[in-house]
Amino acid sequence: MSLPKSIQKTINEFSRLPGIGSKTAARLTFYLLTKSNEDVKNFGSTIANLKEGLVFCSKCFNISESDPCKICLDQDRNIDILCVVEEPLDVIALEKTNYKGLYHVLGGVISPIDGVGPENLRIAQLLDRLKKRNFKELIMATDPSLEGEATASYIVDEIEKLKKSDKIKKDLRITRIARGLPVGGDLEYADEVTLERAIEGRRKYR
Amino acid sequence: MSLPKSIQKTINEFSRLPGIGSKTAARLTFYLLTKSNEDVKNFGSTIANLKEGLVFCSKCFNISESDPCKICLDQDRNIDILCVVEEPLDVIALEKTNYKGLYHVLGGVISPIDGVGPENLRIAQLLDRLKKRNFKELIMATDPSLEGEATASYIVDEIEKLKKSDKIKKDLRITRIARGLPVGGDLEYADEVTLERAIEGRRKYR
Repeated sequence: MSLPKSIQKTINEFSRLPGIGSKTAARLTFYLLTKSNEDVKNFGSTIANLKEGLVFCSKCFNISESDPCKICLDQDRNIDILCVVEEPLDVIALEKTNYKGLYHVLGGVISPIDGVGPENLRIAQLLDRLKKRNFKELIMATDPSLEGEATASYIVDEIEKLKKSDKIKKDLRITRIARGLPVGGDLEYADEVTLERAIEGRRKYR
Repeated sequence: MSLPKSIQKTINEFSRLPGIGSKTAARLTFYLLTKSNEDVKNFGSTIANLKEGLVFCSKCFNISESDPCKICLDQDRNIDILCVVEEPLDVIALEKTNYKGLYHVLGGVISPIDGVGPENLRIAQLLDRLKKRNFKELIMATDPSLEGEATASYIVDEIEKLKKSDKIKKDLRITRIARGLPVGGDLEYADEVTLERAIEGRRKYR
């Protein structure tokens, strides 16, 4: 039996989302079929209008309703600290902490296998920012993954070059967010790399 | 930081889908933000139009583009066998097998905890079908779950009553799909109920 077209189309669209296979896509579609016409239409139009009125902030490249974004315009922030992240989602995560500096969203990581080179990310724009304004600290907050580490390393190399040619002030402090055991985690189940980083990064007790 | 409204709305809508928590919803939303305007609009309108032109077949209550549905109209089917399932998704699953009889979609299972009684399902319509036409076999293919078994049991009880008052012919054979070890499964990891059913349902070897 062939499925009704609109059902098959919806299943196909859901299947294209990351982490959603064809079975989950079918389950979601048939779930929607049990909802009212109005609910389904609302869901559809919400998605269709998702990108309406959204822009990239021309300073930090976060997704925003205004340019510059609210964070870049916020007068209460410490504008001497810049935190480099991969994605807008990372900004949301960090905004739940006490961090009150600025951000720079790279838009991904260097990943040759996916055809993403430094030129596809907002690295040139980051270096420009650092040249134009003397930040005190740059926090590298890319993911603690292979690609995240490589991207951080690439950026730091570029900054070092610019420091040598005096285009970026030498006193810019570059830091990396700590790697270690996640809070609430279980030491015995931690992988050895995490554990090694946790020991390397140990701090004075009290 | 508060998220742009359209992003928050989309995250909220995704979160309402079964099995999708707020983190997955955010991930899906930000994934869509990386897609082209056209792709996002297409996705939205596909969902908005999902229910357009879909009806329930008045015979088998499957979701369909026509009434009666293609299966009920199909001349090549064995119209003497009727298979009772819970959901349209079950029909799709069974259509991948060699089964070539007809279906009756209940639209759920009896589940007092969710406020679903026999009157909320297409049980009366099933009994009507059985009264109006003499099927040779009725296959109970509800899920092998507590609710699925209870629903099957309830329906069979109702049929037995109607057989006694001669409203349904006594030679209607009622069967239940086999419970046992799934193909490719591992005996040592099977739960004891499944294993017990597998032994009860054992068949002659060759």
